[in-house]
Amino acid sequence: MHRVVILGGGFGGLYAAKALRRAPVDLTLVDRRNFHLFQPLLYQVATGSLSPGEIAEPLRAVLRDQKNARVLLGDAVDLDAQNRRLILADGELPYDTLIVATGAQNYFFGHDEWRKIAPGLKTIEDATAIRHNLLLAFEEAEREPEPERRRAWLTFVIVGAGPTGVELAGALAEIAHDTLRHDFRSIRPEESRIFLLDASPHVLSTYPQSLSIQAERSLIKLGVRSRNGVQVTSIDAHGVTLQTPSGPDRIEARTVLWAAGVAPSAFGKVLANRAGATLDNKGHVIVDPQLTIANHPEIFVIGDLGHVEQNGKPLPGVAPVAIQQGSYVARATIRRLSDRPVKPFRYFNKGSLAVIGRRAGVADFGRLRFHGAIAWLLWLFVHLMYLVQFRSRLIVFIRWGFQYVTFDRGARLITGTENPPPSN
Amino acid sequence: MHRVVILGGGFGGLYAAKALRRAPVDLTLVDRRNFHLFQPLLYQVATGSLSPGEIAEPLRAVLRDQKNARVLLGDAVDLDAQNRRLILADGELPYDTLIVATGAQNYFFGHDEWRKIAPGLKTIEDATAIRHNLLLAFEEAEREPEPERRRAWLTFVIVGAGPTGVELAGALAEIAHDTLRHDFRSIRPEESRIFLLDASPHVLSTYPQSLSIQAERSLIKLGVRSRNGVQVTSIDAHGVTLQTPSGPDRIEARTVLWAAGVAPSAFGKVLANRAGATLDNKGHVIVDPQLTIANHPEIFVIGDLGHVEQNGKPLPGVAPVAIQQGSYVARATIRRLSDRPVKPFRYFNKGSLAVIGRRAGVADFGRLRFHGAIAWLLWLFVHLMYLVQFRSRLIVFIRWGFQYVTFDRGARLITGTENPPPSN
Repeated sequence: MHRVVILGGGFGGLYAAKALRRAPVDLTLVDRRNFHLFQPLLYQVATGSLSPGEIAEPLRAVLRDQKNARVLLGDAVDLDAQNRRLILADGELPYDTLIVATGAQNYFFGHDEWRKIAPGLKTIEDATAIRHNLLLAFEEAEREPEPERRRAWLTFVIVGAGPTGVELAGALAEIAHDTLRHDFRSIRPEESRIFLLDASPHVLSTYPQSLSIQAERSLIKLGVRSRNGVQVTSIDAHGVTLQTPSGPDRIEARTVLWAAGVAPSAFGKVLANRAGATLDNKGHVIVDPQLTIANHPEIFVIGDLGHVEQNGKPLPGVAPVAIQQGSYVARATIRRLSDRPVKPFRYFNKGSLAVIGRRAGVADFGRLRFHGAIAWLLWLFVHLMYLVQFRSRLIVFIRWGFQYVTFDRGARLITGTENPPPSN
Repeated sequence: MHRVVILGGGFGGLYAAKALRRAPVDLTLVDRRNFHLFQPLLYQVATGSLSPGEIAEPLRAVLRDQKNARVLLGDAVDLDAQNRRLILADGELPYDTLIVATGAQNYFFGHDEWRKIAPGLKTIEDATAIRHNLLLAFEEAEREPEPERRRAWLTFVIVGAGPTGVELAGALAEIAHDTLRHDFRSIRPEESRIFLLDASPHVLSTYPQSLSIQAERSLIKLGVRSRNGVQVTSIDAHGVTLQTPSGPDRIEARTVLWAAGVAPSAFGKVLANRAGATLDNKGHVIVDPQLTIANHPEIFVIGDLGHVEQNGKPLPGVAPVAIQQGSYVARATIRRLSDRPVKPFRYFNKGSLAVIGRRAGVADFGRLRFHGAIAWLLWLFVHLMYLVQFRSRLIVFIRWGFQYVTFDRGARLITGTENPPPSN
């Protein structure tokens, strides 16, 4: 039986596995984690709207009924491309076809010391750490009598105004102005300041400019202070130092969140060293039009790790690209098994969506562009439909419904080891 | 304004705070955590049925509309009983009435080295750590080719057969036999062995013997191996050593859970040292019939920390006792403010309930005793009614409904720092 190993259970890997369900292959999906994470909703966990369990699904549950598939919890550390063996931290896995879908990780532009101060948003642990920081900041402000220090606790800086930064800023503005309005006695949460920083001249710089400007208007309505064309030169425990067109500046803030950049996962380097793959300047693996690497037609690279160009531009690192690539490599594998020819991969862009707070968003479908409540509703619909399993879908829908009516956020728990457990 | 400080936001503290909502007092609720935890359902988080957010409610949200109350995130480290000041790690809090409701913590009978190997079940972090251990054990077994080592990964030991131990054992048996049945390829989860150990001659030893025996029958039906009259003499990373009536014994097991005992919180010692309170041999604070300590009628002690006898026996450390005591001290405080006499506290026992797996349970209402499906339904009803807020109640109800029909558990995520984040 033809052995297919898929490395990574994100959108790319999972959709590849599912599209192979009727194929005559022996399939192994390897991941470090036991669950698929619906990353586009991670910011809702970070801001207390959803619980981790609601945007994650155990990989074993998703593939339970797929008899040709097994799931292995494992950490891929190396590759023996010659003998077609994936090297795990505690074993080896032979393959005939390898599909690498290890995605991306937070990237701090070489300033790894910022990682601890300004958490990014790629994992469940990132999201609960951010939730912890956000909620604790309000608690600290409530107890802080000194006005300047209180102000620093109530100042939130988000670095990066792409979709993640914009969605975080919108949700945070709602928390500050609506959800927590009546929760505190000494401070007024609506005093809090939310800065959204970006080096580009507009928020959502990959969107058409008309939508960027609409998004900025929605953010301003929510009280978010968007500052564009600025560069962060340093981050410390008490704030952020900037380079602006008019000189250096400083924002005193106790909470800084990182939404500025991701880098491809480190497995790209393994592919370069062990299989002769070529990397682009950011570390993405450059693949041919069939999404395989040179001289190794049995190794596919899909999703955020891959670099493939279409119409002269690299495809963006978003879920729809990974999903379509996952399905494509599954079909390609099946066709090859019966020696049928395989067409090059083409990405069909169904559009981009970003949401800003409770009732605004932007949607770009090429010629069709929406903003405001219509874009928000579209976002809601698309994300509910994509949530992998029915149970999650219903529960998330009910939770959102409640929240929409009550302005309440159920998952506002400060947990984790940073806070001592109650033993007094 | 009369200043009431409540230390602890568990059942006792929260019900005291709520019962003071119309009282002419200035109320401060202090807790180390920002949420009230519905501890009776903690085992459902540990076994992946519910998410942490579904059994916890932010204290600020619960007391949002109570204008005389404020919530303070704080760590009480000392007491100045003379000047009526509670000493926090970072400040002081003056009071006229102090209500101490700091509860209990895991207790390992002096073997603190067992804590790391055999996690107890008192906090959200405990529950997610247990979930992590349980799910990882199946993953390890799936990869382990050596039969004896695999068997140790599939052996689960629960120390303590009180309600928590019995509920954990029942849920774990279901996971092994139903939920994960089709999830694995190399192992058959129904091969797993679940041991429930207790020094008493029966499980649920505080219940009438007829119900204990029914509970044992239900456990056996679920495949749980109940071993009574045994004492754990040591716990290490590879198993448990026992003293049994017929000599020493050993169970090789990679997962051991602690449900054998709790001890009153350490604040009891502060009350002993600073306010002359008397402690019983386990460290509970002995209180008079009005739940105050000798010579300090302004200091109440309620819930699991207190020792109060009724009909010659100390009241058990269960939620209904804490709830009734919380309401009692609120009424007592109000009556004192208008110089009205205060009757001694009387606990009204509404009954005890424990659930065993999906459709069995035991219920003890004095003369009325139930077991089987009726007890299980009663348990379901009572617990849903007590969940503090409507939103949680509905979501938990829907989740349970799904689970009942599908045998599925949504929150089967292995998270936390013990598992490295995905960066390969």
